[in-house]
Amino acid sequence: MLDYWNDYPELQKNLIEVKELISQRLVINNPSIEEAITKFSSTGGKMIRPALFFLFADFGDKKETDQLIKIAASLELLHSATLVHDDIIDDAKTRRGMLSIQARFGKDIAVYTGDFMYTSYFELLAESMSDTPFLLKNARAMKKILQGELTQMTCTFNPDQTLCEYLRNINGKTAELIRLSCHEGAYFGGSDKNIQARAKRIGSSIGLAFQVYDDILNFSIELGDEKKPILTDVQQGIFTLPLLIARDNQPDIIRPYLETPEQLSKTELRQLASYVTEFDGISGALAFAEKSTHKALKEIQQLPDCDGKEILASVATQLLTRKY
Amino acid sequence: MLDYWNDYPELQKNLIEVKELISQRLVINNPSIEEAITKFSSTGGKMIRPALFFLFADFGDKKETDQLIKIAASLELLHSATLVHDDIIDDAKTRRGMLSIQARFGKDIAVYTGDFMYTSYFELLAESMSDTPFLLKNARAMKKILQGELTQMTCTFNPDQTLCEYLRNINGKTAELIRLSCHEGAYFGGSDKNIQARAKRIGSSIGLAFQVYDDILNFSIELGDEKKPILTDVQQGIFTLPLLIARDNQPDIIRPYLETPEQLSKTELRQLASYVTEFDGISGALAFAEKSTHKALKEIQQLPDCDGKEILASVATQLLTRKY
Repeated sequence: MLDYWNDYPELQKNLIEVKELISQRLVINNPSIEEAITKFSSTGGKMIRPALFFLFADFGDKKETDQLIKIAASLELLHSATLVHDDIIDDAKTRRGMLSIQARFGKDIAVYTGDFMYTSYFELLAESMSDTPFLLKNARAMKKILQGELTQMTCTFNPDQTLCEYLRNINGKTAELIRLSCHEGAYFGGSDKNIQARAKRIGSSIGLAFQVYDDILNFSIELGDEKKPILTDVQQGIFTLPLLIARDNQPDIIRPYLETPEQLSKTELRQLASYVTEFDGISGALAFAEKSTHKALKEIQQLPDCDGKEILASVATQLLTRKY
Repeated sequence: MLDYWNDYPELQKNLIEVKELISQRLVINNPSIEEAITKFSSTGGKMIRPALFFLFADFGDKKETDQLIKIAASLELLHSATLVHDDIIDDAKTRRGMLSIQARFGKDIAVYTGDFMYTSYFELLAESMSDTPFLLKNARAMKKILQGELTQMTCTFNPDQTLCEYLRNINGKTAELIRLSCHEGAYFGGSDKNIQARAKRIGSSIGLAFQVYDDILNFSIELGDEKKPILTDVQQGIFTLPLLIARDNQPDIIRPYLETPEQLSKTELRQLASYVTEFDGISGALAFAEKSTHKALKEIQQLPDCDGKEILASVATQLLTRKY
């Protein structure tokens, strides 16, 4: 998936190094977990968090490459660990178009695989930032991410979940880590406090837009042949922005679907998906994501000029036109 | 369970503070996890790791109580997190004489409860030791503990498991954290390098003896009415020292039991337990645990005199006469 960054060879080179470091660290004396990790890494994601980290590091003048690679790797590892454990909770069958670790190897292996990723993450932090305030920030970010997952879990199958609750959940489970990635990039790249504060705000906006867009993709029946399965969220009782907007617009029609979503037939799910489009769920969520992206772009324009600035703006825009 | 320390009021006072700090930290906005954590804490263990930590801290002259309480709490939290996740892997029905978190609340809640304990552990470390080499030591200890669990998992249901493999596993899964507790006590209490090195060695010896004794208790049918269920290890394919010694002494009789241990009837299990006693499995394992304890006691004698020294010797001896 790193060919996503083909147009940015320098960034891509850094991300390849991050991937190599992660592979080196995730060596373990257990054949099943070794295999689980290899499978997980080979289908790897776009590494958006490390990418944003490097782009923000570009605004500063410190270039301790080893340290930057380690910190970028820590961000991806934390993300991976949460994915592996979340798939256990969601009973997710697939991840990145492949069987999830828990579906392929069982929950037991998935628990330890995630734990092992957490220990490697923690080890990288201890090696790269022990004398900085970011150690504590990492611990607290980890807590917020978990809290986001947990409140999402509490909200599942609740047909009365509010937009506000939804936003709070995604602010924790997704935006927090993207915000941290941007903030750490600015800090460890050597930028001043103003740029650091801006990086945090940009990270928040990108993070929210990113998750909302992800949730929109889950509703796009036109994307039926794409890697992601459709309406899986709804069946698991996870009600996201497009659905919640449509429900608020047409409660009489939408709400009944949310009572026992796990029992909906394929036909009913397709019907629901088209209702969500019809009652402005998709367009409303897209408008939210676009607004959040524009907020990020506006802040990016106010950053000092550097190579990374233009790339950053393109990346923020691209994330809202991706198909998976 | 803190009444275990009734004879040592000062130590007990410290442990109560540790318990309170842990309760404060483990507050979370999820009713199931909140309940799971409360249940887990209220049935709490003896807090041996924090206790050893404080006893070793006594040999130094630094007494930054807040820091010591936090570090002691971090040790107990790491221990608790590994217990919660291990119970998922072992499909354990009980823990500390009560239903385990995974049996009571399901694997999903158990995954997040463990994760939440890990984040709180990590937060405490970030607050208390960020500028010391012990951050990295903690990360590596965490890795070793996990590796110990994993190699144990690889060894399950293997009737040919060697004594050497068994010792390597318990050195990781149990001795590592007890060693770290003693080492951190000496370091953060302000002891010199010699005492620190001795603390590590004492921790190793106590840790090995402690686990072997735990494994012996699993075989003691006389303890049928005690809190721990009997021969659960064997049924789960976990073959420990008493069994391995008996097998090596009488392979023709014992080995067949190890082929399909999950299918053994209650009668067969009782027969196996009496074979293990008959073929010197219990006495052999006890001899190993005693040897390891004596090694610890000999080292303890060579520590400088202080209030904690005598307590430490009593505690090491007591751990080998406990009934649960």
